[in-house]
Amino acid sequence: MSLVRMDLNISLDGIAATADQTPDNPFGEDWGRLVEAYTQTRTFREQVLHDTSGAGTAGLDDDYARGYFDGIGAEIMGAGKFGLHAHPDDPDWRGWWGEEPPFHTPVFVLTHTPRPPLEMQGGTTFTFLEASPPEALALAREAAGDRDVRIGGGPTMAREYLRAGLVDVLHVGITPIILDKGIRLWDELRGLDRDYEVSSEASSSGVVHVTFTRARSA
Amino acid sequence: MSLVRMDLNISLDGIAATADQTPDNPFGEDWGRLVEAYTQTRTFREQVLHDTSGAGTAGLDDDYARGYFDGIGAEIMGAGKFGLHAHPDDPDWRGWWGEEPPFHTPVFVLTHTPRPPLEMQGGTTFTFLEASPPEALALAREAAGDRDVRIGGGPTMAREYLRAGLVDVLHVGITPIILDKGIRLWDELRGLDRDYEVSSEASSSGVVHVTFTRARSA
Repeated sequence: MSLVRMDLNISLDGIAATADQTPDNPFGEDWGRLVEAYTQTRTFREQVLHDTSGAGTAGLDDDYARGYFDGIGAEIMGAGKFGLHAHPDDPDWRGWWGEEPPFHTPVFVLTHTPRPPLEMQGGTTFTFLEASPPEALALAREAAGDRDVRIGGGPTMAREYLRAGLVDVLHVGITPIILDKGIRLWDELRGLDRDYEVSSEASSSGVVHVTFTRARSA
Repeated sequence: MSLVRMDLNISLDGIAATADQTPDNPFGEDWGRLVEAYTQTRTFREQVLHDTSGAGTAGLDDDYARGYFDGIGAEIMGAGKFGLHAHPDDPDWRGWWGEEPPFHTPVFVLTHTPRPPLEMQGGTTFTFLEASPPEALALAREAAGDRDVRIGGGPTMAREYLRAGLVDVLHVGITPIILDKGIRLWDELRGLDRDYEVSSEASSSGVVHVTFTRARSA
């Protein structure tokens, strides 16, 4: 049976969505620091930047980056990850993932203001819908077939899925920086660890990879 | 020159002081879970429980536990770590560290209600004083000679020392549990990492050890 998976980058103080975006720097400096080790991996360069030169880091961070892209059959993401919040009034806005986004699967974008679907190059289709977490998950499971479903974030949506007990595997890459502003992942998730096996690995980059794996019911 | 060091156990969501204490369980269940890997080490059993049987875990958690006790010449702690808050009206209360506390050095307890000093077995002396962080540090440095000074916590005091730039080495043992209530270490410490080298190691217990080491001025 396919798994519901989630991969997020957080700071040491648990910030998963940064808050220093400006018109000139739509991702913000904090975001750059938060995902620095990930964006330096060979896999990120290949999959997101379409850089086939072989540049980028290998090693543990790259192993997790490769795992992020492996075996996913559909994704659910919040409107912010697609980029709707940045361009709410532009019906022609096609997101900030380029014409060939790195998903290569159906992607369900949760929004209160649905718009027509977008078919991108490389197999990514964006479908915009207003739905509860379980409703969206049912659609994504059907689209994914026997492959896994990724809950793509941001953290507010991620927390809804975690609180509802809908996530089988949660991987967080913890970057050892302290941001103290933004949206924290762990709020109102007291005791989450009790439903999971938890394991940790440290990368030479300083990033710590913590994986929560839920015991499957029989 | 001696260093100012701090070692704290925190949860994945940064909680360093737990909040589920009861009269029947003065440390609380959360505290037990937070420090479980540490209290299972051979060093903790020897140094705190006076168990010389050799029981307890070896390995990375024990290496950090041994580092915690090595080379300290004086400690500064908050009233809560001594136990004053639990027995505010008992002038004969001698703290919850037993008659032979594991410090074996002068200990300066910061409190708004000073009381006479206590001389314990094994070289620990408790001195109670109302002082600013730099004032207390000057006293502790003098008492420590060429050995290191430990800032013992709790987290409110720890944050004051960190914000004031007075800590040379901060080690946090991060236990992969989510508590979501208690006092968080990282609040208002945005950018702390910029003043330090940061390294990470993961233990088979699941605990992640992150060490901030400040570049020394020449």
